[in-house]
Amino acid sequence: MKIDGRAWRTIWPIEDRAAGVIDQRRLPHEFATVELRSLADACEAISAMTVRGAPLIGAAAAYGLALAANADPDAAALRAAGERLCATRPTAVNLRWAVERVLARLEGLEPAARAAAAWDEAARVCDEDAEANRMIGVHGLPLIEKLAAAKDGPVNLLTHCNAGWLACVDWGTATAPVYQAHDAGVAVHVWVDETRPRGQGAFLTAWELGRHGVPHTVIADNAGGHLMQHGQVDACIVGTDRTTAAGDVCNKIGTYLKALAARDCGVPFYVALPSSSIDPALSDGIKEIPIEERSAREVTHIGGLGADGKVAEVQLTPAGSGVANPGFDVTPARLVTGLLTERGLVAADRASLAAAFPEKFGAA
Amino acid sequence: MKIDGRAWRTIWPIEDRAAGVIDQRRLPHEFATVELRSLADACEAISAMTVRGAPLIGAAAAYGLALAANADPDAAALRAAGERLCATRPTAVNLRWAVERVLARLEGLEPAARAAAAWDEAARVCDEDAEANRMIGVHGLPLIEKLAAAKDGPVNLLTHCNAGWLACVDWGTATAPVYQAHDAGVAVHVWVDETRPRGQGAFLTAWELGRHGVPHTVIADNAGGHLMQHGQVDACIVGTDRTTAAGDVCNKIGTYLKALAARDCGVPFYVALPSSSIDPALSDGIKEIPIEERSAREVTHIGGLGADGKVAEVQLTPAGSGVANPGFDVTPARLVTGLLTERGLVAADRASLAAAFPEKFGAA
Repeated sequence: MKIDGRAWRTIWPIEDRAAGVIDQRRLPHEFATVELRSLADACEAISAMTVRGAPLIGAAAAYGLALAANADPDAAALRAAGERLCATRPTAVNLRWAVERVLARLEGLEPAARAAAAWDEAARVCDEDAEANRMIGVHGLPLIEKLAAAKDGPVNLLTHCNAGWLACVDWGTATAPVYQAHDAGVAVHVWVDETRPRGQGAFLTAWELGRHGVPHTVIADNAGGHLMQHGQVDACIVGTDRTTAAGDVCNKIGTYLKALAARDCGVPFYVALPSSSIDPALSDGIKEIPIEERSAREVTHIGGLGADGKVAEVQLTPAGSGVANPGFDVTPARLVTGLLTERGLVAADRASLAAAFPEKFGAA
Repeated sequence: MKIDGRAWRTIWPIEDRAAGVIDQRRLPHEFATVELRSLADACEAISAMTVRGAPLIGAAAAYGLALAANADPDAAALRAAGERLCATRPTAVNLRWAVERVLARLEGLEPAARAAAAWDEAARVCDEDAEANRMIGVHGLPLIEKLAAAKDGPVNLLTHCNAGWLACVDWGTATAPVYQAHDAGVAVHVWVDETRPRGQGAFLTAWELGRHGVPHTVIADNAGGHLMQHGQVDACIVGTDRTTAAGDVCNKIGTYLKALAARDCGVPFYVALPSSSIDPALSDGIKEIPIEERSAREVTHIGGLGADGKVAEVQLTPAGSGVANPGFDVTPARLVTGLLTERGLVAADRASLAAAFPEKFGAA
């Protein structure tokens, strides 16, 4: 998407010898890019969260293998590089998927041909991710157009966390319909949940919407229910890290609360996802999905721009108070109006998902 | 309640010429008290949130009128002082109630007798508030004892914002049963919602529970639904700034989201209140209660303890992103398990409230 008028992706090749990424740790107060010139650089970028978001982590891992193939195209070295990449964020499903995909492509090739093939495969991973998200937007745009036709003024959408282009290669999942509506001249305005404790909404979603020129308003995570009660939200649209066969969605902590408010207030609640997030082996998300307990420091401390223009961290909680920090929650399918995928809007139930993605659910 | 072993109230008279308060803006990182020596001091303390919480605002307003009576006991001057106090926080119903109560006490008195009577009435406002909250605890304690009897381990309660003794004169509303259970040796543990944007949970509730010795855990506002889904919350207990005749409660923004989760997960949702928060003239809280839009800076910036040991503010949101900051939301009566008042647990409906508080609802 655009940053102040210029088109960007979150990751890009540099003359087949390096990859460039946006340093997302420094957003929103500083915009900087980083060059990845080795496998170690790629591992560090993933583990230090210079890049974050499931699809972007996968893309960075693919480029990590390409960088490894530059240095040593030996099969054992490449397998070791893949394991090293997979160890950087052990819970990221896309990471292993991307590593295995690139290794499969290289299998059977002469060592001398592997580096070029790895760079090509990494580029394909990126292009396919961008295309899947573009298609989510293509299918989501009519939903926004319909809301626009039914009212005066802009369509007010609410989103939680960052399921934006910064989490992907381009477009984003939840944001793809928003960008396409905005670019098509449909007036949209986005309520951006701050998304404590890590602040991905305030830090990343607000930044990317602002740089592309999409009207938006940051709110505390507590505010969305009140806005929905008062007719100020026409639809919610969020992402998901894992989607069960039954249509339960596991997304950033707090998503469930917004889904409850949407149901209570009669607001449609859409979840946007590439089909790669669907795990047909899972059926009951609340019972089956283990929820990552993240660092207490994310709750006790927060980083921001100080009066001196430097980014600094401050402590919020009193000394001696304990903290819990579950990273995700599960929104049951019964609260989901529809799953917005690269193949269209799919009802959040097993039959509909199996019909839309038969290859994932085995032969009928 | 106790601060590291010593009993405190949040407001106290100093030789009938001034009032002392805890400077709540500096909690939890610093403990300091402030003396109010004039009407202007009292207004400033309320509007700047040196004191906050509906009952404490009422008590501070009562002392504000006593300070005004010291300076000028003329009836017109006292009425003007009352209006000035009422304008400091337009949503707070206790503010006007306390002002009218003190003015009514002074009516008909000789000007020379008014100051002493105002100080006496302010002290009564405080004592009655403390007693009302103590009684909320007396009526709430059996609810906690019953939860304790039904399980092993501590009773896990979830609260939002600060409806603690810091918001009142003593005991707190939502916390009164917690303190009484803890003091009686019933094992309780409190999940403390951080309560963005102002952080009253992380800053105040965590501090007061910790200083009194009550086990507690701070969580992001987003986390409570997940905890309730997984049986980690035995009951929610929150306060209310305004309660309608129908039992709707207007409390800190985000309360409604927790009430929805409690209903969805079968967790009891109690609202603790002194009957002074009941406004029998209101019936539909969502339609009738105007919600204060607070400063954008509460969302864009946050204060905390810096690495240098000084309290500093950092900016969270990107430059150019707009912000909305509704201060309260309304939880409809249908989501409230019961209203915990100084006269006992009352169902959240007009008939039950009228039966419990006939003097508020007019002759039967």
